[in-house]
Amino acid sequence: MVLSGIFPALTTPFARDGSVSLTDLKHNLHLYNQTDLAGYVVIGSTGESVLLTKAEMDAILVAAREAAAKNKKLIAGTGAESTAETIERTKRAAELGYEVALVKTPYYYKPAYKPSVLIAHYRRVADESPIPVLLYSVPQFTGVALEPAEIVALAEHPNIIGIKDSSGNVQRVTETIVQAPPSFQVLVGAAATVYPSLAVGARGAILALACALPEKCVALYELFRQGHHEKAREVHSLLVRASKLIVSECGIAGVKYVMDQRGYRGGLPRLPLLPLQDEQKKRLSEFLLALEPAAMRA
Amino acid sequence: MVLSGIFPALTTPFARDGSVSLTDLKHNLHLYNQTDLAGYVVIGSTGESVLLTKAEMDAILVAAREAAAKNKKLIAGTGAESTAETIERTKRAAELGYEVALVKTPYYYKPAYKPSVLIAHYRRVADESPIPVLLYSVPQFTGVALEPAEIVALAEHPNIIGIKDSSGNVQRVTETIVQAPPSFQVLVGAAATVYPSLAVGARGAILALACALPEKCVALYELFRQGHHEKAREVHSLLVRASKLIVSECGIAGVKYVMDQRGYRGGLPRLPLLPLQDEQKKRLSEFLLALEPAAMRA
Amino acid sequence: MVLSGIFPALTTPFARDGSVSLTDLKHNLHLYNQTDLAGYVVIGSTGESVLLTKAEMDAILVAAREAAAKNKKLIAGTGAESTAETIERTKRAAELGYEVALVKTPYYYKPAYKPSVLIAHYRRVADESPIPVLLYSVPQFTGVALEPAEIVALAEHPNIIGIKDSSGNVQRVTETIVQAPPSFQVLVGAAATVYPSLAVGARGAILALACALPEKCVALYELFRQGHHEKAREVHSLLVRASKLIVSECGIAGVKYVMDQRGYRGGLPRLPLLPLQDEQKKRLSEFLLALEPAAMRA
Amino acid sequence: MVLSGIFPALTTPFARDGSVSLTDLKHNLHLYNQTDLAGYVVIGSTGESVLLTKAEMDAILVAAREAAAKNKKLIAGTGAESTAETIERTKRAAELGYEVALVKTPYYYKPAYKPSVLIAHYRRVADESPIPVLLYSVPQFTGVALEPAEIVALAEHPNIIGIKDSSGNVQRVTETIVQAPPSFQVLVGAAATVYPSLAVGARGAILALACALPEKCVALYELFRQGHHEKAREVHSLLVRASKLIVSECGIAGVKYVMDQRGYRGGLPRLPLLPLQDEQKKRLSEFLLALEPAAMRA
Repeated sequence: MVLSGIFPALTTPFARDGSVSLTDLKHNLHLYNQTDLAGYVVIGSTGESVLLTKAEMDAILVAAREAAAKNKKLIAGTGAESTAETIERTKRAAELGYEVALVKTPYYYKPAYKPSVLIAHYRRVADESPIPVLLYSVPQFTGVALEPAEIVALAEHPNIIGIKDSSGNVQRVTETIVQAPPSFQVLVGAAATVYPSLAVGARGAILALACALPEKCVALYELFRQGHHEKAREVHSLLVRASKLIVSECGIAGVKYVMDQRGYRGGLPRLPLLPLQDEQKKRLSEFLLALEPAAMRA
Repeated sequence: MVLSGIFPALTTPFARDGSVSLTDLKHNLHLYNQTDLAGYVVIGSTGESVLLTKAEMDAILVAAREAAAKNKKLIAGTGAESTAETIERTKRAAELGYEVALVKTPYYYKPAYKPSVLIAHYRRVADESPIPVLLYSVPQFTGVALEPAEIVALAEHPNIIGIKDSSGNVQRVTETIVQAPPSFQVLVGAAATVYPSLAVGARGAILALACALPEKCVALYELFRQGHHEKAREVHSLLVRASKLIVSECGIAGVKYVMDQRGYRGGLPRLPLLPLQDEQKKRLSEFLLALEPAAMRA
Repeated sequence: MVLSGIFPALTTPFARDGSVSLTDLKHNLHLYNQTDLAGYVVIGSTGESVLLTKAEMDAILVAAREAAAKNKKLIAGTGAESTAETIERTKRAAELGYEVALVKTPYYYKPAYKPSVLIAHYRRVADESPIPVLLYSVPQFTGVALEPAEIVALAEHPNIIGIKDSSGNVQRVTETIVQAPPSFQVLVGAAATVYPSLAVGARGAILALACALPEKCVALYELFRQGHHEKAREVHSLLVRASKLIVSECGIAGVKYVMDQRGYRGGLPRLPLLPLQDEQKKRLSEFLLALEPAAMRA
Repeated sequence: MVLSGIFPALTTPFARDGSVSLTDLKHNLHLYNQTDLAGYVVIGSTGESVLLTKAEMDAILVAAREAAAKNKKLIAGTGAESTAETIERTKRAAELGYEVALVKTPYYYKPAYKPSVLIAHYRRVADESPIPVLLYSVPQFTGVALEPAEIVALAEHPNIIGIKDSSGNVQRVTETIVQAPPSFQVLVGAAATVYPSLAVGARGAILALACALPEKCVALYELFRQGHHEKAREVHSLLVRASKLIVSECGIAGVKYVMDQRGYRGGLPRLPLLPLQDEQKKRLSEFLLALEPAAMRA
């Protein structure tokens, strides 16, 4: 199971009444199917998974599976606080045809989650999982970071194939790559760090930004792969700006707003996440206009 | 609704097969009913609520309601990540006879959870809740702290009656008390800070430690209330040591272990939380022996 | 050497041309001599010691020694980054008649300053010091906190008599008091935590706020000592507000501004510290007016 | 003034009696002169500048100036806590023939050091400095980080030519490069981030590790410059390991120890920094042996 390239961390579209809109989700996937995205991450952090019911998660997994083109790899977010529920979700994802489980760290009982606890958790999950496990470290949300020592210990497990490191910490990424076996696949989760991370050996990225600007994210990956470093750096510069403005400053609501402007179906986030304020919308619109004056997709 | 005194944050006992043991829960409550504990907090952080299924939470709420003596106040932990689910859980708790809802902050999308977002979330919950709401700030678990400015803004809501501040930060506690209206009730959640917090006007405490050492926690409260400061300080010293050793160093597993030693039914925590190591058990046993050489309950 | 009561951490007045004004310093001390302050801390953090030359520090130590009433205890701030310079400064302070050396942690090479390094540093300083040493932990400035384990280890040294803990962390303060020998003296450095810290056994406080509001700080201490808890709590409430507004929000410039309004000589801080903005001055003036409408000293 | 390539942050050698050894310093410089290092940073963080007296700093600046080959650029660390002393040190360095002043942020009064304060400080220093100023952000030591917004504001000053960012935060580095004018030069200070930072447009690096392994650091830079990415990545991997083991785990004492093993004169650090423990020495020696089995320089 090779995980190279760019994967969007899919957003979850909600209808006016607040329910999940599977129609809008499929609409987005049909558009994404036409790009060179490597695959999809379903019900990850960007998918507002922590705001969904179990039934909603199940329905989304089914719908995304149906709408995804055959050549796209399918990764399901299955991490829960309890080990048992993580295993249950992972088995269900496998049953539904997902090929990889993206398992975030548990994160509530932080003082108790010492390295040995995290390692025992992941080993148990990997033992029980019918599909390969991708570790997921996202300290800006969880307050828990997987450090190279733990990652390297877990890389020995035959069913743990890599990590999505969303910390934005390229030093940690490069230490992980240097210390882990060559087969261990490191993907990053912060758009501004994709290019420097590819430079030190990361395989690709799982990005919220790729929901809104899939072509640009894919272009960066392809330019890097072909050794066009000058052009890659240009696209990288654009993604650094875009990522700061859209993802860092406006969050999921920002990603969804830009999706709406570009022909995808973003919609509003679920409470407690609030919609954008007018001033934020204005800044995003101006950025988009500067980005593609003649070619506004919508 | 006056919330003075000491409330244990009840642990959730699990049977050998890992299922919730309502029998053990009721056993504990029958013992607690004979003390001067002011009431009970059910499915809070210490209750491993984030590791329970919805059905389990429901069963625990029902069982605790049944077993609790009539004179004990009943508080249910109802905070979830999504506003809608928090409201749903709160309504359900009210339906089952709970008198107060303890609502922890949402905590996953930290960069998005600006003060305005947290305030909007709590207002919405308080608007919809049939019972009074107690704010709950527990940054050591959530990475999100409610600051005096937000708390004071929320204190204006007629259905928000107070806060459980588990930060251990007495400076924040005293700033909150000084700035909020006198009717706003502040309880603390760290045993080592109960006595200094009472000194500056806190009404009481919700404590994991009170599951294991209810008499001592109650004694501190009563001694303070009666102005016996010298003796209060002695009990305080003991609780500082106990809290560090049992709660800070050994976590929920430590609380449960001490419960087992003292005639309550603690049992093991649920994964990913691990059982104590032998060396930890030894230190806890030694501490208990020094505490009550002649009167080991078990 | 008993260190009970309230000590102001003296500010350093600067003349119009930016040089140290020993005249203004002595003016302040003559006023403070008439209060029940227990003594003075000279060239501590509030004294902008890190912005002074060696010659200036020496001149201030001499001038304060001369101006201080005989019944006031004299404490000199002598902590420097290097162990050798700390010892040199400590010896010089002893030579000039200071009775206690207040020694802040070194704080530049944080990753290297493991507990063993801090312990070795303090032991070396205490071995060489002709006067008793008071540890000084002020993590909001240094990023380095002395934890109870280190403090307790250092409390065994016969020439280390106590600690000034400015962290505002009452839990750490109470853990230190519970674990250290009874003779070890704990003073706090955050005005909002004085009352709860006295409640758990602290001996007193070293406060920037006591430069501006000495009578109020002394009143809190006396009311506590005499067991007038109701009235103590009232003064405490006032100091919580004052400390937040003056010290936390406006810093040394705020303390100096309030001193100027109340008949002391505050003046401006040294660069890079900036003077207050008009809006800050206005809020401080309003607070003072509410505090003592009839009795504005200036 | 173009600052490309690798600069060692020179260590300060001490003689047996603890005094500065200018002889050893010159010995090291004579060896470094034979490499392709771009120049030298004198009395920076690695030079234990915060542990030196003013007279020692002056003597070191003079000696390094004398010993440095003509083609090496000379940068002096001149940042102090006070603005006035920073300016004084900067002028003195210029007088002694240094071409660039490396000015770390002030860092004691952290709560007061808001962006506006840092910007005012640097502008004042740059106004007064006879030589170009290089900003210096090293949050692991100072607890203060310069963020892209402040850096970009300061980049407008004609006498501020760039920044040494030692945070190890490549995301911040790349955001700075994308936002600042193209003439603004970004150097990094963490060996593990040199290669990914060069990839996104950094000009070079100022490294403690370059005191111990100058050839390897220079090799990385040259391989990158010539587009030999495969080989660059190999050297990068080696530097990631070396940096973690020598600099992160063993600090300045580790750098000095490795220097001693390789024919330079390292010696011991000054207190409170402690010498290495035997176990650390053993690990460093093993690493060096693996690094260059046949060619141990000493």
